[in-house]
Amino acid sequence: MSQRTAPTLDDVARAAGVSRATASRVINGVVPVSRPATEAVREAVAMLGYRPNVAARALVTRRVGAVVVLVPETEERIFSDPFFPRAYHGALEAFRHSGFHVLLSMAHPQDGVDPMLAFFLSDHTDGAVVTSHHGQDFARAVATSSRPVVFVGNPGVPGLAYVDVDQVGAAATATRHLVGRGARVIGTVTGPMDMSAGVERLRGFQQELAATGRSGHLIAEGDFTFAGGEAAAYDLLSHHPEIDALFVASDLMAAGTIRAAERLGRRVPDDLLVVGFDDSVVATQSIPTLTTMENRPDVLARTAGEMLLEKLNGREPESPVILRSKLVRRESA
Amino acid sequence: MSQRTAPTLDDVARAAGVSRATASRVINGVVPVSRPATEAVREAVAMLGYRPNVAARALVTRRVGAVVVLVPETEERIFSDPFFPRAYHGALEAFRHSGFHVLLSMAHPQDGVDPMLAFFLSDHTDGAVVTSHHGQDFARAVATSSRPVVFVGNPGVPGLAYVDVDQVGAAATATRHLVGRGARVIGTVTGPMDMSAGVERLRGFQQELAATGRSGHLIAEGDFTFAGGEAAAYDLLSHHPEIDALFVASDLMAAGTIRAAERLGRRVPDDLLVVGFDDSVVATQSIPTLTTMENRPDVLARTAGEMLLEKLNGREPESPVILRSKLVRRESA
Repeated sequence: MSQRTAPTLDDVARAAGVSRATASRVINGVVPVSRPATEAVREAVAMLGYRPNVAARALVTRRVGAVVVLVPETEERIFSDPFFPRAYHGALEAFRHSGFHVLLSMAHPQDGVDPMLAFFLSDHTDGAVVTSHHGQDFARAVATSSRPVVFVGNPGVPGLAYVDVDQVGAAATATRHLVGRGARVIGTVTGPMDMSAGVERLRGFQQELAATGRSGHLIAEGDFTFAGGEAAAYDLLSHHPEIDALFVASDLMAAGTIRAAERLGRRVPDDLLVVGFDDSVVATQSIPTLTTMENRPDVLARTAGEMLLEKLNGREPESPVILRSKLVRRESA
Repeated sequence: MSQRTAPTLDDVARAAGVSRATASRVINGVVPVSRPATEAVREAVAMLGYRPNVAARALVTRRVGAVVVLVPETEERIFSDPFFPRAYHGALEAFRHSGFHVLLSMAHPQDGVDPMLAFFLSDHTDGAVVTSHHGQDFARAVATSSRPVVFVGNPGVPGLAYVDVDQVGAAATATRHLVGRGARVIGTVTGPMDMSAGVERLRGFQQELAATGRSGHLIAEGDFTFAGGEAAAYDLLSHHPEIDALFVASDLMAAGTIRAAERLGRRVPDDLLVVGFDDSVVATQSIPTLTTMENRPDVLARTAGEMLLEKLNGREPESPVILRSKLVRRESA
C-alpha cells in the first residue's frame, strides 16, 4: 500500500506503548487485556482519530449487523397503505434484541427498483425480508444474493423461503359468504396479476363459484390502491349492472369500490354487497364499515423475520409457512 | 487463508482458460478484453457460481452506492406524521439518477437508536441525511462517522452542515398574527425541548411578545404528536382559562389542541385562536382548518440531499441553508 494520511493500527500501538496485537484486541473487544493497556489504547485511538477498517474487518466476520426490508413499491404507496407500517413493525419485532438493525428500502419513483437491487446485491446487509414483490424477475434477482432472503407472499420461484396467508382459501371463504348472503351475480376486483396475492385470491374466488355452478367470469383487475379499486369497480359495475355482490381483493380497493357504487347511484350493502381483504384500519373507518378477510401483515413479516434469523444462525427454517385467515363481519356484506 | 468452499478467482480463470488478470478485468468491467475471453469468463462465473468479494472490492473503491435517511424516531411516529413521507420524498428527489440508493433507517421501538447508530458507523452506506434528531448526543455520535452527514434542522453542534427553516422568524410571524387578531393573553404549546425546532419556535414566540411588552410565560411542552399536543393544551387551558390564543408548534399538536379546547367547552376560533406550524395535510383536514406557518419537509430534505451529494463529490456545500417561512391563513385564527 502506498502512503496514507489516516492513522494505522501501528500508529495506535506505538502511541499507546503496547504491541500491535494488544491494540487490535482492545479495538476488537477481545479479552483479556489489562486495564492500563486498554485505557492507553483507547486514549491513543481518541488522540489519533484512528478508525478501524470496517471493510477489512468484514473480510473476516462477513457480518454487517443489519438486515433490510425490501419493498419494491414507491414511497407514496408505502406511506398510504396501512399494510406497510404493520409489516415493518412485525419485522422490527422479529429482530428485537438481536443486534441487527432493520433498514427499510423502497423503490425510487423515477429510478425504480434497480438502485435497491444493486444495493442489496452488494452485500452491505446480512439478509432481507421482501414484501409486495411483483413478478418473478424481482424475486429471482434478489435470490442471486449470497445473503439469505425470506419472502412475505409466494415469490413463485421454487426453493425460496416464504410465509403467506392461505390466499386461495381466504378468497373462497369471502366468496362463500356472499353466496350465503343471497348474492346471485358475483364479480371480483382483483389485485395486480403480477402478484401472487392477486392471482391466488382470484383463483379462490373462481374455485368457490365453480363448485356451486356459478360464473366466475366477472373480473376487473385493480392495483391494490383506492383509486385503482374505484376505477376497476366503476368499469365493471357500469358494464354489468346485474352484479349484486363483489369480492374485492383489498380493503383500500373496497373503499374505492364503495365510492364507485355511489357514483353509479348504488348503495352498499342495500344494492351491492362488498367483501374486502386485509381487515386494516380502512375496514373500520370506511362508511359503511367493511366485511373483510383477516390479514396480519405484522404476523407475516414477523414470521418472515424469524425465518431469516434462523437462516442467519445457520439453520434452515421450514418453508412455506401458511397462515389461515378468517372472515370479519361488519356492515358491507 | 485456510480452505474455503467458495470458488476463487483462480478457479474462474482456470475454468475459462484465461489468466487471472484477464478474469479479474472481465469481472470488474475493465476494458479491453477480447470478446471470446469475456464470454469464457462469464460462462465460468456462471458455472462455478463465483461471486466477487465485495468487501475486498470496497477496500479499493470504498463506495457503497447508497445513502441513508436517519430518522431517530419510532416507525409508529414516522408512519403517522405527514412530515416524514414528505421529507423522505425530498431526499429521493435529490438522489434521482445519481446511482445512489436511498435507504430509510428508523429507531427500534424497544432497542432505540443504538442499532441504527452501529449500522451507520460501520460504513455500509456512503453518507446520511439526518432528520428529527433529539439532543446533541445523537448528532455528535453520527458525526463521528467517516462518511459525510447533513442535518435537516440545526444539530446544535458547531461545524456540522444543516438546512433549516428560519424557526425563530416563523414563530415570531405566527405570534404577530395572533396579536394582530386582537389576542390579549397568548400561550404556546412547544415542541420537545431537546429539539432545536422546539427551542427556537419558543424563542421566536417569546421575542415577539417581549417586543410588545407582553408576557411570553404561558408555556406547555408538547412532543409533536396529536396526543401530546392535546394533553399539553388541556393542562395549560384548564389552569389558565384567561388564554384567548395559542401558538402551537406543529399542526398535529394544533389538531390535538382543538380537541382539548372542545373538551373544555371552548370553540376555535370563536373562544380561542390557534396558529399551528407545518402547513401539512393535517392543516387542511382539521375542523376548523388551521392557520399555520409554511414548512416544506420535502424542500428541506431535498436541499440536505443535494448538500450531501456535493460532499460525496468532494465539494463542501455552503452551510447552513436557511429557508424562509410564511403564514398560511385558514379558519383557526
